[in-house]
Amino acid sequence: MNERGFHMSPEEFRRCGYAAIDWIAEYMERVEEFPVLSQVKPGKIRSQLPSSAPEGGEGFDAMLRDVGEIILEGITHWQSPNFFAYFPANASGPAILGDLLSSGLGVQGMMWVTSPSCTELETQVLDWLVEMLGLPEQFKSTTAGGGVIQDTASGASLCALLAARERATGFSSNARGLDRKLTAYGSSEAHSSIEKAMMVSGLGRENLRLIDVDAGFAMRPEALSSAIAADKREGLTPCFACATVGTTSSNAIDPVRAIGEICREHKLWLHVDAAMSGTAALCPEYRHVHDGVELADSYCFNPHKWMFTNFDCDCFYVADRAGLIKTLSVLPEYLKNKATESGAVFDYRDWHVPLGRRFRALKLWFVIRHYGVAGLRHHVREHVKLAQEFAGWVKAEEDYELAVEPPLNVVCFRHRGGEEVNRRIMEEVNGSGKMYLTHTKLKGQLTLRMSIGQTHTERRHVERAWGLIREAGERAT
Amino acid sequence: MNERGFHMSPEEFRRCGYAAIDWIAEYMERVEEFPVLSQVKPGKIRSQLPSSAPEGGEGFDAMLRDVGEIILEGITHWQSPNFFAYFPANASGPAILGDLLSSGLGVQGMMWVTSPSCTELETQVLDWLVEMLGLPEQFKSTTAGGGVIQDTASGASLCALLAARERATGFSSNARGLDRKLTAYGSSEAHSSIEKAMMVSGLGRENLRLIDVDAGFAMRPEALSSAIAADKREGLTPCFACATVGTTSSNAIDPVRAIGEICREHKLWLHVDAAMSGTAALCPEYRHVHDGVELADSYCFNPHKWMFTNFDCDCFYVADRAGLIKTLSVLPEYLKNKATESGAVFDYRDWHVPLGRRFRALKLWFVIRHYGVAGLRHHVREHVKLAQEFAGWVKAEEDYELAVEPPLNVVCFRHRGGEEVNRRIMEEVNGSGKMYLTHTKLKGQLTLRMSIGQTHTERRHVERAWGLIREAGERAT
Repeated sequence: MNERGFHMSPEEFRRCGYAAIDWIAEYMERVEEFPVLSQVKPGKIRSQLPSSAPEGGEGFDAMLRDVGEIILEGITHWQSPNFFAYFPANASGPAILGDLLSSGLGVQGMMWVTSPSCTELETQVLDWLVEMLGLPEQFKSTTAGGGVIQDTASGASLCALLAARERATGFSSNARGLDRKLTAYGSSEAHSSIEKAMMVSGLGRENLRLIDVDAGFAMRPEALSSAIAADKREGLTPCFACATVGTTSSNAIDPVRAIGEICREHKLWLHVDAAMSGTAALCPEYRHVHDGVELADSYCFNPHKWMFTNFDCDCFYVADRAGLIKTLSVLPEYLKNKATESGAVFDYRDWHVPLGRRFRALKLWFVIRHYGVAGLRHHVREHVKLAQEFAGWVKAEEDYELAVEPPLNVVCFRHRGGEEVNRRIMEEVNGSGKMYLTHTKLKGQLTLRMSIGQTHTERRHVERAWGLIREAGERAT
Repeated sequence: MNERGFHMSPEEFRRCGYAAIDWIAEYMERVEEFPVLSQVKPGKIRSQLPSSAPEGGEGFDAMLRDVGEIILEGITHWQSPNFFAYFPANASGPAILGDLLSSGLGVQGMMWVTSPSCTELETQVLDWLVEMLGLPEQFKSTTAGGGVIQDTASGASLCALLAARERATGFSSNARGLDRKLTAYGSSEAHSSIEKAMMVSGLGRENLRLIDVDAGFAMRPEALSSAIAADKREGLTPCFACATVGTTSSNAIDPVRAIGEICREHKLWLHVDAAMSGTAALCPEYRHVHDGVELADSYCFNPHKWMFTNFDCDCFYVADRAGLIKTLSVLPEYLKNKATESGAVFDYRDWHVPLGRRFRALKLWFVIRHYGVAGLRHHVREHVKLAQEFAGWVKAEEDYELAVEPPLNVVCFRHRGGEEVNRRIMEEVNGSGKMYLTHTKLKGQLTLRMSIGQTHTERRHVERAWGLIREAGERAT
């Protein structure tokens, strides 16, 4: 203890901070050396940690050493260029450093007054993104709508569903409680967060209708129409539909325009979940994925997936911010202030579930400025090109088939040898530590997925992955 | 663009990273020079930002310069030792650097398999905290319960209420939809997040009963009993009560034991919201704030408020993790894996609303190790001591009065000159930029709050604050 108590002095912070930066720079250089999927058994990491907290303080070097010696073995390396599992969570230098500054400033952006920059930079950058992705004007803060950063697409879907619930019940559900059966709609391939939102909101997962998909796993609009009509005949109240731009399973793109027209006809809230693939719209040639999005009441995409921004950062837009705010706003005395009363500012705490909020716009701003729109486009195009090339290799190989033509950067494929062969391929390549890919089921069939979107994935990594898969395939048959 | 495309190389990351660390170290040294409450007018920050994103990339130095020249003016300095508003959000060096490593590793901890260390370190550190705060065994992962990091106490309250809703309805609400009137209870001083959770969950804010408080603003258990009985007579289903340990307004400590006994009698879920003051229980002499917490079904406190851990980090515990998981779990095919199927691991995605999750245990681990339990206790005691000393000064001054005896580190007081005088005092001291405090209303009276918990607040800051308040008070009368 010194005159500052037990706190780290600015000088110590500088020294330890450099060491942490060096550690990350070395990690970036060495990440390909580690097994992509952690190979530890359950309990191994915990067993190396003390059973109680230390009574006295420890030095930073000891902690950094333990990160290397204990923690690292239990890391699955999402930042490895050989990571092809689930979906990307592709971080980048500017994002990490923007987030570091956010931690250093340590502001709490729950309201405009608690740090005006936190709110105003967020509003501005989210307006930039409307233009960058070619989204409709209705999502700009200069209209009746606007954007906000949410933690995840799960949070965004939940807020969209809640706003839909309130619109359908005249803002009585959040006041007096839900008093009728409301139904919602998504394709059978929609993300599990829609089901979770149904559970959280009190609507109930059984009132989510999973609409049939076509051969490309995109929602069939005529099936949506029928389902809504059937529910209406039963006296239920359809209130919400989710169109997915890039399903998690197979990256299918739902026909947003056709779904949107049905929603307009039946007065349903349309939410467009573009968490995984909205980023593609940076490039004019992929902007067709958003065709019809001007019919949407809300929209989200995740820079923390495929836009080089470390978790968490979901961009959520609504066409009618007043409805969203009326759904979620509570104003206790201790949060009242003149700026809020003036109506001249946004208080983002009313746009999502948590009260507190981190200054996340900073990292997003850094990413956009570092890459520029041209740089972001370049890397998105590279990822799509690599996926298309991989798909070509699959097609050229007799023993393999595509499960569906890849729309963008996710390739769903399988060995023709059946479920067990595919399972063995997956276990062998993931167990080797040399790459990591995951599976899904499409039309009941086990399907392998190559999701290509990690920041540093290059042609050589995809090429090697294909080699590893084929070798494993040979051994598995 | 180089051979890595537009990405930052590890060498550039090192150079820019050092610059970011230096920036923060300098910020720490200079934070007292800035106006604590940002003095900008709405729109000022935005007006200095370009209207569109840059087409080409920009250098890191330009961004860092803009943070200093544009952003800083719109920052309200939560990390200033002269910040006495709302509640602390007290960051520290080890927390910032732990979070930096988390950003650098860039893992997604939604399930055990997606980074075993992220789950296992979290479980271990949350078990440590059970001991550190003297919490009951039922919250340890080695029992049927366990802890998880949530974003905020709002998230924790929501999950507690959802689990209560499901327990009361036999897990039918998340399946078939809410079909009856459920009621919930908190004191009239409970946090607004309870009301928000009622709105989100579909229970409706009008079904939250705000229970009367005693002279110290703590919930009156007999009023709770009567309210439950009255609702039962009406045929409603009481399901949930929240006891607050340290209300936001006046830091009141609800009588957890008496509330808990009533909850047991009527089979209500008891959630203890110790977001603000749970940290005090690090010190045996303040552990009485938790008396009766063994009767709770869930509990939360925020290391991101008063335990030197930067936002976000709320520790949430349940006595029956199976109930929580059954409330929130959805398992799509693409997330299935052997470790999950084995039942030997925790998948924390089922313990909260979001699917994705950051490696937040790292910063919490760093904080606990850096300070040690003794160091944390030291600083908590210092804050409480300063608040008690401040309260003594108020009492000694004829023109001022305490609104209530301060239980810990928040002092509610007022000038005897009435509402307008107090409002003028607040506006003058906050407008001076020299300190920042906020208000509440207690028994309808405007009350000033000194919340003492910023990392670097020392006696001299509190002393100066009192001087500024008295000077403003003289001018205001």
